[in-house]
Amino acid sequence: MASSEIETLTQALARLPGLGPRSARRAVLHLIKRRETALEPLLKALGVVSETLATCSVCGNVDTTDPCGVCADPRRDGRSICVVEEVADLWALERSRLFPGKFHVLGGRLSALDGVRPEDLTIDSLIRRVEAGGIDEVVLAMNATLEGQTTAHYVAERIERFPVRVTQLAHGLPVGGELDYLDEGTLAQALRARRPLG
Amino acid sequence: MASSEIETLTQALARLPGLGPRSARRAVLHLIKRRETALEPLLKALGVVSETLATCSVCGNVDTTDPCGVCADPRRDGRSICVVEEVADLWALERSRLFPGKFHVLGGRLSALDGVRPEDLTIDSLIRRVEAGGIDEVVLAMNATLEGQTTAHYVAERIERFPVRVTQLAHGLPVGGELDYLDEGTLAQALRARRPLG
Ligand SMILES: [Zn+2]
Ligand SMILES: [Zn+2]
Repeated sequence: MASSEIETLTQALARLPGLGPRSARRAVLHLIKRRETALEPLLKALGVVSETLATCSVCGNVDTTDPCGVCADPRRDGRSICVVEEVADLWALERSRLFPGKFHVLGGRLSALDGVRPEDLTIDSLIRRVEAGGIDEVVLAMNATLEGQTTAHYVAERIERFPVRVTQLAHGLPVGGELDYLDEGTLAQALRARRPLG
Repeated sequence: MASSEIETLTQALARLPGLGPRSARRAVLHLIKRRETALEPLLKALGVVSETLATCSVCGNVDTTDPCGVCADPRRDGRSICVVEEVADLWALERSRLFPGKFHVLGGRLSALDGVRPEDLTIDSLIRRVEAGGIDEVVLAMNATLEGQTTAHYVAERIERFPVRVTQLAHGLPVGGELDYLDEGTLAQALRARRPLG
């Protein structure tokens, strides 16, 4: 039987999305057999991330610096803010390199079912960013789900009183589709055809 | 874009078997969002394993102690040794709890193609264990592949001169099948029907 230490590691890996008990065991064997080339690099990378991980106080992105790399990048267009539900959505958009502006991570979506209210999201801090000025456009990039769209409308209403253009991703998004799962082409099309929220 | 530290962690995870770049990204997001319940436990478990990992000097198992947990367990029947190719095979047999004896990990299989010769495996140390006495049976549990069976016959020949019964797993194993992938039922049947190597 594997020792309890190895068992503990296997269980920690098995809880990752995409890994079950079986693949976690194979991963542990892989790590154990390749101590220098797999285990130590993973341990080091995890340690560095664990020590430096921070939630960006500006946009809610998670990065190893605060402000995050996107917020700190002077080449990004600060007049345009893309509002997303989750950090995963921000990362998906960043991988596509389609959006040259900055971001705002809400930290979820409004949901009567799950009891998520406006004050549970970072909507107030988004309003403060808009209020501070220098922003021309807020792009709403919530998921094309009922809750995502409810959230988009709520945020649009809150921004209404500011001299800012509010747009949302074109509904080329498949219904029920989650941003983080979309291919780059669909994302590109949806972004290109973004339109004023009506 | 994710910082280079997060990118490094993603790449380290993506190299694990069963995880690709996409699932590694989702795993990293999972870890980052659940810092206290996922990232820190995984970091701690990896650190402990990294610090204590050892190859058993008796049987070749990998564990956090030397001798390993199996070799050190006084309830195990030391008169019976099950010889396997890899640590993964030992673990598969241990999970099935079917074999009450001890083990010997060869560290591979003889292969003309891959240039693996007897001296590249731990066959000499197996012979020394047999020579030291107190062993009634050696169970050959190599994979049912050509190379596995070649290895089994070679080991059987080397043990021939000792007063020890040499058996091998019944060929209920599917041809070409690798031990580590078998379900418990097949393993149980193969072990129950083990027979003298003829
Ligand atoms: Zn930021
Ligand atoms: Zn051992």
